[in-house]
Amino acid sequence: MNPDMIRAAATRGDGVLRMTPLLSSPFLDEMAGRRVFVKPECLQHTGSFKFRGGWSALSGLPRAQREQGVLAYSSGNHAQGVALAAKMHGVPAVIVMPSDAPVLKIANTKAFGAEVILYDRANEDREEIGETLAQTRGLTLIKPYDEPLVIAGQGTCGLEIAEQARALGIGPAQVLVPCGGGGLTAGISLALEAEAPEMTVRPCEPSGFDDTIRSLTSGRIEHNSRQAGSICDAIVTPAPGALTFPIMHRLAKPGLAVSDDAVLAAMAVAFLRLKLVIEPGGAVALAAALGGGTDLPEGDLIVVLSGGNVDPEVFHRALATQSPA
Amino acid sequence: MNPDMIRAAATRGDGVLRMTPLLSSPFLDEMAGRRVFVKPECLQHTGSFKFRGGWSALSGLPRAQREQGVLAYSSGNHAQGVALAAKMHGVPAVIVMPSDAPVLKIANTKAFGAEVILYDRANEDREEIGETLAQTRGLTLIKPYDEPLVIAGQGTCGLEIAEQARALGIGPAQVLVPCGGGGLTAGISLALEAEAPEMTVRPCEPSGFDDTIRSLTSGRIEHNSRQAGSICDAIVTPAPGALTFPIMHRLAKPGLAVSDDAVLAAMAVAFLRLKLVIEPGGAVALAAALGGGTDLPEGDLIVVLSGGNVDPEVFHRALATQSPA
Repeated sequence: MNPDMIRAAATRGDGVLRMTPLLSSPFLDEMAGRRVFVKPECLQHTGSFKFRGGWSALSGLPRAQREQGVLAYSSGNHAQGVALAAKMHGVPAVIVMPSDAPVLKIANTKAFGAEVILYDRANEDREEIGETLAQTRGLTLIKPYDEPLVIAGQGTCGLEIAEQARALGIGPAQVLVPCGGGGLTAGISLALEAEAPEMTVRPCEPSGFDDTIRSLTSGRIEHNSRQAGSICDAIVTPAPGALTFPIMHRLAKPGLAVSDDAVLAAMAVAFLRLKLVIEPGGAVALAAALGGGTDLPEGDLIVVLSGGNVDPEVFHRALATQSPA
Repeated sequence: MNPDMIRAAATRGDGVLRMTPLLSSPFLDEMAGRRVFVKPECLQHTGSFKFRGGWSALSGLPRAQREQGVLAYSSGNHAQGVALAAKMHGVPAVIVMPSDAPVLKIANTKAFGAEVILYDRANEDREEIGETLAQTRGLTLIKPYDEPLVIAGQGTCGLEIAEQARALGIGPAQVLVPCGGGGLTAGISLALEAEAPEMTVRPCEPSGFDDTIRSLTSGRIEHNSRQAGSICDAIVTPAPGALTFPIMHRLAKPGLAVSDDAVLAAMAVAFLRLKLVIEPGGAVALAAALGGGTDLPEGDLIVVLSGGNVDPEVFHRALATQSPA
């Protein structure tokens, strides 16, 4: 992995990827006691940053291989990213999704024209299912994070952060990134190493599903003890990836863990102050920013809001955590 | 009023106003049966386009006059726009607001450092209150729409639409604009007349509060029979303005009226498909776009989402109108 792979992904995505804005609010600054800038990837196509990786992977495949079709396993956002990228390329997509994925994500993946195959998250292994399907149908597996083209695609978000921060005169900020398998965190870390080395990346995870935080501390890949039970479904993965972990270990500073309550409160803040819809997994970095005390050294924060594909029921719960005044 | 006044407002706002993106979703295209682009002014500072006009007015005043302070009467969004512009200029602001304005808007206006004076929307005349206060305290009244500097500020949204549409290769689109007193509609109309004359502007209003639609039909200023009772509080005004109406009559095509139910459904669509929070008054143009049948000739639509300052209770009602799948 090197920055040129990210720049190449940006070139392949030119005119297709949406450059999401870099937003701010005086209310957030006041709550965090410092300047806070947010990068709303919920406004990316398909409602999450995953379209970056999906588009990068599809557009980076040899044409003949791409036309045979692609396969992905995903709790929802990678599914939508790959499905839309496949639709835009006019090639078939098969998506393996957990049966307890949000209704909205399953429905959207189907709406993008993909064939959806559901599995039991607690008792079946999605990687095994995916690899079997890929072999029997001749499809190319697009892994959700442990794939160089995908990491490069997610890194385009980091190139945008560097460019937008430069335009605003932002210097050595801490960049808080929601972290599942580490594709977004690794991609942004590589992009910023090249384009804004004065910044530091901080992976953010839900408490109890902090595999990356523990891995960064111990220096080896640690696993989550369970795969279900978090409201942050989008970023619960077994462990950081074999490709993403070494990148994060080299470039990302200690991670930050946040509670479900802090996540719901952050979603309500985004509703009230940013007019943005964020899903729980997409709100962990904002939660860390707003609750940041001793874990966060002083200075500007750049917070990635990684996705917005949330069912209304969960959003109701989030809004119920705060009164408007 | 001329386009150079709008360009001057854009220059005064350079580095201060936020250039909101131009977004799209395949789901919206499918619902509307055509290409739909949205201009989310809910992402503007203070959560609505009104900051454009507020900043334009404050920055356009002679310095000595500005420093004596400003006054505004507003159901909420103009209040916040003027309050933040005053705060950023370091000058005092007094805001006259209806006592039934959304709690969030009153709270935010106070949070921006303004002095808030509440009045009874049904029995008192806000213009009379405002003019009396302006005289007794030496404040400059910043009218919400019938003020050239304010119209010029709102017009900067139109300059951005023209530029962004050009970059996307959009030609003779219909531009649907939520319309209260007509400041935004008139400003956008003037900007597009100069920069994208192939586009047509369509003002959108809530049914039963369609003063502008009736005025455009009759050719003279018509009034709403009542001032309360719509969920679209932000865009209920007595009548189109003396300055805005002639501009709209010359440049804006027949308006479109939408029901409260259509507005709530449009808010739910924005939640699900755009990941944006829109207030009822800010959703009338999207409602018109999604429900558009015989009233809307074929062709691309550009839909302005004018604001997002909605209380959670109203947002709950909107989400309840739709299931996620």
